[in-house]
Amino acid sequence: MTAPVVGIVGAGQLARMTSQAAISLAVVTRVLARDPSDPACLTCTTFEIGDPGEFETLESFSRGCDVVTFDHEQVDPALVDELEALGRQVHPSGRVLRFSDKAHQRAEFAARGIPVPEFVIATTAAEVVSFGDVHGWPVVAKVAVGGYDGRGVFVLDGPDQAETLMGRLEARRVVVEPMLAIEAEISVVVARRTSGACVSYPVVETRQVDGICVETITPASIDPEVADRATALARRVAESIGATGILAVELFVTDDGLVVNELAPRPHNSGHWTIEGAVTSQFENHLRGVLDWPLGDTSLVAPAVATVNVLGTNSHDPIQHLPAALAVEGARVHLYAKAVREGRKLGHVTATGPEPEVALRRARAAVEALGVPLTPPSKALTSKNGVLS
Amino acid sequence: MTAPVVGIVGAGQLARMTSQAAISLAVVTRVLARDPSDPACLTCTTFEIGDPGEFETLESFSRGCDVVTFDHEQVDPALVDELEALGRQVHPSGRVLRFSDKAHQRAEFAARGIPVPEFVIATTAAEVVSFGDVHGWPVVAKVAVGGYDGRGVFVLDGPDQAETLMGRLEARRVVVEPMLAIEAEISVVVARRTSGACVSYPVVETRQVDGICVETITPASIDPEVADRATALARRVAESIGATGILAVELFVTDDGLVVNELAPRPHNSGHWTIEGAVTSQFENHLRGVLDWPLGDTSLVAPAVATVNVLGTNSHDPIQHLPAALAVEGARVHLYAKAVREGRKLGHVTATGPEPEVALRRARAAVEALGVPLTPPSKALTSKNGVLS
Repeated sequence: MTAPVVGIVGAGQLARMTSQAAISLAVVTRVLARDPSDPACLTCTTFEIGDPGEFETLESFSRGCDVVTFDHEQVDPALVDELEALGRQVHPSGRVLRFSDKAHQRAEFAARGIPVPEFVIATTAAEVVSFGDVHGWPVVAKVAVGGYDGRGVFVLDGPDQAETLMGRLEARRVVVEPMLAIEAEISVVVARRTSGACVSYPVVETRQVDGICVETITPASIDPEVADRATALARRVAESIGATGILAVELFVTDDGLVVNELAPRPHNSGHWTIEGAVTSQFENHLRGVLDWPLGDTSLVAPAVATVNVLGTNSHDPIQHLPAALAVEGARVHLYAKAVREGRKLGHVTATGPEPEVALRRARAAVEALGVPLTPPSKALTSKNGVLS
Repeated sequence: MTAPVVGIVGAGQLARMTSQAAISLAVVTRVLARDPSDPACLTCTTFEIGDPGEFETLESFSRGCDVVTFDHEQVDPALVDELEALGRQVHPSGRVLRFSDKAHQRAEFAARGIPVPEFVIATTAAEVVSFGDVHGWPVVAKVAVGGYDGRGVFVLDGPDQAETLMGRLEARRVVVEPMLAIEAEISVVVARRTSGACVSYPVVETRQVDGICVETITPASIDPEVADRATALARRVAESIGATGILAVELFVTDDGLVVNELAPRPHNSGHWTIEGAVTSQFENHLRGVLDWPLGDTSLVAPAVATVNVLGTNSHDPIQHLPAALAVEGARVHLYAKAVREGRKLGHVTATGPEPEVALRRARAAVEALGVPLTPPSKALTSKNGVLS
């Protein structure tokens, strides 16, 4: 064996942190970027500029890669199927990438007995209204494809808003579900080898504002028995869909039990804490999984680990205040070298502590030192940026 | 402030791991390499090929760097002085780099009251013989410039060997010292800002074979009071010479107390454990120090941390057995992507544990899984590869 070459489609912060992890293992990373200023271009071994929507680009990129993997899900699974048909190793596979389509995911999970919220897949206002009339208003509508970080999620108060939304979406599919009373949003990050062995990280509590993850706390402050069930459920999902590398399974803890909310078939924001907080990071375990190498220890290295995201403001680039953030004891700052834009994820801060509140206080202090105002996270599922006005 | 550019002269594994640490802080790394296949060329932001022995090369390389630092000490301090005279920020400075000359180091330390072994600086056999006749044979002779990893260190049994060595060295300066009875070899890694603030890591015990560090254990299994004195001494050395960034101070624990053996004015093999074993790694603290940013927490994250070096054998490239090494629980493998050569440092493995022996057992198991035979380290100062035959 010589040093393996892992191709990563997409050059955002996930590819950036994956290429950072690759250095220790002498794994060569080759990134397919949109622009040379993308975050991973300066950290990977080599990069190419191209459109992952074109089969020719993907095909030529994948030549010379031992494995191709992804920074994002904006790749047509049918193109991935074609690559696989040529004998290229692609992980996750086209079959797994199809689960990024929320409608496909819901329908499949319901069919496999995996608990999900009540739902309907709708393309017309009438279908949405019918669901709302049965399950009660408001309802939540999520576009099946293309939403992220709260975009494409809409709280609908009644039939009028349903009409407006569905008119705008022009027959795009949405998943409609009740406005659930959520006790906690949690995530289980699973790593799975292509040959099937699987490990999982301790359950993470994620705190969202307007659909964007702003903070995580590990371990989640939930009943250990609920945590065990969530872990078992996430691993069952990973097995069931044939995930390879990292799969993040986001769940809601509700009065009626656990339901699967969303999947990310790649390293995920809810796993950034693992860089300093676990023996093996999600990024290293993603590489190990897609290369079918033994998976690393997922244990916590401290009693509690918190991360706080660094979200862009229009006022300044947080790097201007980096020294002040580094002065915060025990805070580990990560900046993604992205151009500043309001609300954009520009970095994160991780801190460990003897208990969650101490870790969180340290991480928040460093984010504030970067000049980024903290957004008090709400535990309720609201999606302000998606509310129709 | 925009992302700072740190220039690193030399592209070995130290530059490689420094550039890996730079990614988190969005620091841009620019490396001056000998060859595009050097370990850091694939991990830094950009690299240039050039000879650091030529002033024009250094001068042009340093343009556009906010700070210039080093992967090795094979740079003429006089050229660094010239760069500084042009107003370039170079850390460590030419003044500090002069301490890589063992003769200069010994003479200066003796003058400053820093404890060192008895010594003489010799250029002739007569001077060596005179020292041996007073202090007893055998003596140890170390070339003042150019030795590393046991090269350039010679155990001399008597006047005949002194004649042979000094004849070969053709008036090169050597530091001659008694063959000390050493209880332990330890290292204190200090980080210092250009503005003077200083932190230090817990004392490391280093185990050497033929002058090459093969294993480290942190914290060192020495009397805590000795550890405190070693730490104070190392910090005094750092202040005294005006070190910036990382300075590794290697010391001998002898019956007569502590003596300073050697310095490395840069990240050092005895600090590799800090990547997983300390809150902030030596590589990140080197960057922080040379950029005059607040230094990070140097605490251990586990009760004990061990590293074992991966030394080259002629039989195979250890990467062939990487999956087997990754299967060893808790072992963190680092490979430097270097061409294999007998005895060459190709990587290291770090493991944490509840006590030193557990950590060491894990790290050794992973190194053995890489197909690298473990060399039982000796605690006695012998330098087999340097013995004259």
